[in-house]
Amino acid sequence: MAEPTVEQLNATIRGFDLLYGLELLGYADGEVFAQVKVRDEVKQPAGLVHGGVYASIAESMTSLATALAVMPDGNTAMGLSNSTSFLRPVTEGVVHAHASAIHRGRTTWVWDVRFTDDAGRSCAVTRMTIAVRPVPAGQRPPVVG
Amino acid sequence: MAEPTVEQLNATIRGFDLLYGLELLGYADGEVFAQVKVRDEVKQPAGLVHGGVYASIAESMTSLATALAVMPDGNTAMGLSNSTSFLRPVTEGVVHAHASAIHRGRTTWVWDVRFTDDAGRSCAVTRMTIAVRPVPAGQRPPVVG
Amino acid sequence: MAEPTVEQLNATIRGFDLLYGLELLGYADGEVFAQVKVRDEVKQPAGLVHGGVYASIAESMTSLATALAVMPDGNTAMGLSNSTSFLRPVTEGVVHAHASAIHRGRTTWVWDVRFTDDAGRSCAVTRMTIAVRPVPAGQRPPVVG
Amino acid sequence: MAEPTVEQLNATIRGFDLLYGLELLGYADGEVFAQVKVRDEVKQPAGLVHGGVYASIAESMTSLATALAVMPDGNTAMGLSNSTSFLRPVTEGVVHAHASAIHRGRTTWVWDVRFTDDAGRSCAVTRMTIAVRPVPAGQRPPVVG
Repeated sequence: MAEPTVEQLNATIRGFDLLYGLELLGYADGEVFAQVKVRDEVKQPAGLVHGGVYASIAESMTSLATALAVMPDGNTAMGLSNSTSFLRPVTEGVVHAHASAIHRGRTTWVWDVRFTDDAGRSCAVTRMTIAVRPVPAGQRPPVVG
Repeated sequence: MAEPTVEQLNATIRGFDLLYGLELLGYADGEVFAQVKVRDEVKQPAGLVHGGVYASIAESMTSLATALAVMPDGNTAMGLSNSTSFLRPVTEGVVHAHASAIHRGRTTWVWDVRFTDDAGRSCAVTRMTIAVRPVPAGQRPPVVG
Repeated sequence: MAEPTVEQLNATIRGFDLLYGLELLGYADGEVFAQVKVRDEVKQPAGLVHGGVYASIAESMTSLATALAVMPDGNTAMGLSNSTSFLRPVTEGVVHAHASAIHRGRTTWVWDVRFTDDAGRSCAVTRMTIAVRPVPAGQRPPVVG
Repeated sequence: MAEPTVEQLNATIRGFDLLYGLELLGYADGEVFAQVKVRDEVKQPAGLVHGGVYASIAESMTSLATALAVMPDGNTAMGLSNSTSFLRPVTEGVVHAHASAIHRGRTTWVWDVRFTDDAGRSCAVTRMTIAVRPVPAGQRPPVVG
């Protein structure tokens, strides 16, 4: 079965990812690129992109990529921990996200996600740990996330 | 100046907090209670509440409470790191959040946030570190968040 | 088989735990108490207890307690992540540690560890995630840690 | 005043760093290399390098490098949080550590530390946040750490 294209994946975005505006740009073995356009609905009261938006982007892009990689072996992926540090506020433009897998174990994957602004400056980083577990018998095929 | 009531604070919610549905329930010295009602727009593709929603709630309630506490001294509050662990999925009902300040330093505050489902089971925990900084001279009064 | 007493556990301490001076004081279902006496060999150059000492204590007491709890089911315990925040320096006396299990899942346990000084002030906190895994077939009985 | 050489820095190692065997190998702008030789005294009971050893190495090398960089401006450096993930056990040889500064702010520095074994495999990673603060008036020149 061929891997889905980014266009196919973006067409399936719904729920929270659709609400805050996740856009996938590309993915390959152990790398994912995504972005969110800055607008009032992703800001906190002082006018900065809300810290939870970075955490959400990291969670989604790494869960998705891990799930796509482990599904062929009958496994599913699920966020275990999300640790995000905030380095510099973003107030306009686009939040650019780049995730790199730093560990692909049998039971956990660990990812680093780096967020940059339009000027290429680091604005936040996330270390994301994803649990890899067998799909429970009798359960429907794992839905990504 | 009197502290704002929860009703007053809820009336000012906008941006991302409004988007995902944050509701403040109460706050006191070093404690905050909040909730988010579960609906499709806060879920990831598998039908669970999205991990980023917990991170967002923790970020907002602790930033807000820290800001309210340090503003009288001419300081502002800003998220430094957000570390969320996911313990048990929530698929329906309400996500209940309870934040407790475990450190109120001169330059950083540290909070523990515990999330529970309608049955009172722990579903996620966040350790949130908030930087406390002087409001830059000439800047408008700090807006919470 | 009876659970080992604290005296029995302390008698088996060796390796790194012996080097920095871990002392177990008590444990019960989901709770562990331990301490380390402050002396020059556990300090960093400025004369404060080294941050790594808190991380080490948290790692050992939670790994031990998880291992003791899951061994009867043929499982072993292993540190997955250790996230320690430093709140207030300790320079003398005793570092007191109290660990509480906040999640006891099938595949991961999560613990909160709080460190206090002789005056009872919070000095550091650790969130510790422990993986629970089946003992590989043919392996010797799991040694704690 | 010239920056100290690695030999000069190693000659000043004492306290906890001396106890577990920290060796600095080199440092430059935003990069530090260090190692610890594996021996029984840095292991946990199952014969693996103790998780606290990785946390300790990360803490020391990033605190030191931050302190050296901010001292000329009258500032001191102090660990704020240490978040270490364990990827693969090390049982023999040398633990190799490489720290890279990913944020050098006015009040906080953030570092990534990667640990590898003799075969070059990633064994642990640490995200370290260091607070940068003015040296209190009347205090002795900041001692590194």
